[in-house]
Amino acid sequence: MVATVAANCAIGVDLGGTKMLVGVVDESLGVLHRVQHSTDDVDATELLGRLGEMVDEALEAAPGEVCGVGFGVAGILDSKTGLIAASPHLPLVGVPFEALMGERLGVPVAVDNDGNTSMLAEWLHGAAKGASDAVMLTVGTGIGGGIVANGGLVRGSSGGGAEFGHMVVEQDGEQCSCGGYGHFEWYASGDAIGRAGQRALDANPGSALAEAAPEGREVTGALVTELAHDGDAASIEVIVEVGRRLGQGMVSIANIFNPQLIVVGGGAIAAGDLLLAPAREVVERDALASLGTNLSVVPAEFGADAGVIGGAVLAFEQLAQR
Amino acid sequence: MVATVAANCAIGVDLGGTKMLVGVVDESLGVLHRVQHSTDDVDATELLGRLGEMVDEALEAAPGEVCGVGFGVAGILDSKTGLIAASPHLPLVGVPFEALMGERLGVPVAVDNDGNTSMLAEWLHGAAKGASDAVMLTVGTGIGGGIVANGGLVRGSSGGGAEFGHMVVEQDGEQCSCGGYGHFEWYASGDAIGRAGQRALDANPGSALAEAAPEGREVTGALVTELAHDGDAASIEVIVEVGRRLGQGMVSIANIFNPQLIVVGGGAIAAGDLLLAPAREVVERDALASLGTNLSVVPAEFGADAGVIGGAVLAFEQLAQR
Repeated sequence: MVATVAANCAIGVDLGGTKMLVGVVDESLGVLHRVQHSTDDVDATELLGRLGEMVDEALEAAPGEVCGVGFGVAGILDSKTGLIAASPHLPLVGVPFEALMGERLGVPVAVDNDGNTSMLAEWLHGAAKGASDAVMLTVGTGIGGGIVANGGLVRGSSGGGAEFGHMVVEQDGEQCSCGGYGHFEWYASGDAIGRAGQRALDANPGSALAEAAPEGREVTGALVTELAHDGDAASIEVIVEVGRRLGQGMVSIANIFNPQLIVVGGGAIAAGDLLLAPAREVVERDALASLGTNLSVVPAEFGADAGVIGGAVLAFEQLAQR
Repeated sequence: MVATVAANCAIGVDLGGTKMLVGVVDESLGVLHRVQHSTDDVDATELLGRLGEMVDEALEAAPGEVCGVGFGVAGILDSKTGLIAASPHLPLVGVPFEALMGERLGVPVAVDNDGNTSMLAEWLHGAAKGASDAVMLTVGTGIGGGIVANGGLVRGSSGGGAEFGHMVVEQDGEQCSCGGYGHFEWYASGDAIGRAGQRALDANPGSALAEAAPEGREVTGALVTELAHDGDAASIEVIVEVGRRLGQGMVSIANIFNPQLIVVGGGAIAAGDLLLAPAREVVERDALASLGTNLSVVPAEFGADAGVIGGAVLAFEQLAQR
């Protein structure tokens, strides 16, 4: 009889504004088991309770030894106080999340912003592997991000940095959900694709976009992307327009960070080169000297499971015995 | 007879777009001897020749042992090629500056962007001493900068980063001298104060600004600042307006870097709190959660000698025997 050595695992948690996803992840970053639940309309107690149950289920399902649980949270964590300092889509502001979850679960936990966990996963195992300087943009409902500089993750003095969605790109622009004005995510996120699609529909009620969005169905970034892939000219134009806006933000990133690459993840990356090609064009044209031409703009390697894998990579990095 | 031990010195060079300034600097950062010359209307050969003579003079004037010569250059240096990759105001693009000066001078030399040398000096010895995360903005003709993150200077993958003046703050804004559009330095530099002053004068030809700028004398940031300190309401309004623009760029910096402080140097800092108070107000109001309220916006400690001292600090750091 040959003994089977169970693989080491980590539990990765993607705690986002619309759903929470818990996965068992092995050391080769395969996702072995998934548990998912909505985060809409729950209060903090319900959310934490439900999350505890989901992680318990994942812990039971894990085939090997679990080194711990890594959380990527859509919010700003304050590393000095241990509290969640801001989270526009979750009822967790002021919650000592790591302490509570550690106590509830009885296993080692690690918590970081979801942009940081995505950057960590792409840097250690994905599109930015081996880079000394890279920036991650997660383009979805909003825009999150992560930074690698001088060969290390940059989180800022209290862990709240890399919020690229909240760069000011239009000085007297539209008010952002965070309270600021003219922020990058208003103009260049997945939601921005939806809004631009709605404007295109309103301007041309006879278009394929109008036909595909009948009976007051909301124009989303996903719908525009789908139509664009099907060849609808108006939808393609919308994505090219938002891609240029994305590129303008990347010009700032190129000139500030001089990174080797910018990795783009999040739901909007479903648009692929329809979105990235115009972004690259703006970066090459407008960034300073060699800062734009020596910079690659690439899609993330981890797709829909990026959040779970990011959480698991955080756990492997911070909690595994070495 | 008691032997006098001569202090260790470094030569610091501030190579800017309008002048080059060479100084002998002792270990307590006192500037013992200065040589200055214009950089207007010189070609590369003249500039390098003149600079060599100036440094020779400084080396002779130094009272102690000189560890080397540190240059802060207004331009983008490519650490991979050793060439100056961009420099809007100097005829040095494509010049292997460090190699040429090292050969010409016969003493150890170190070269960096002037924003980086200013940041280094403020971080090691000035307003940002002891910070793990800080950003420097040198607000003058344009806006340069430097970054400290995770307790180290961040220069980017080829040494060209920290060009905060070339953040996009207005998506379809005015064209910048670098070729890009809507850059921070167009709206928030010392030159921006001059341009806003000119607009205020044009709008109100009977103002103190108009009286003080007779016979077509150009309205400069320095003139507006002088009149503002004298209490001229229109000039104060101009500086407050530019201070708010400065604050909007700082909101991006706060949300990206979550620094403990932003240090503001350069000529425009002569306006003092007239400029910084409205900037602070915007940062506190618009930056995310605790990122703005826990952030100090402070003037640089090193004034007109900042460039020379920055160069010398670079030399002490990189060239001194320890």
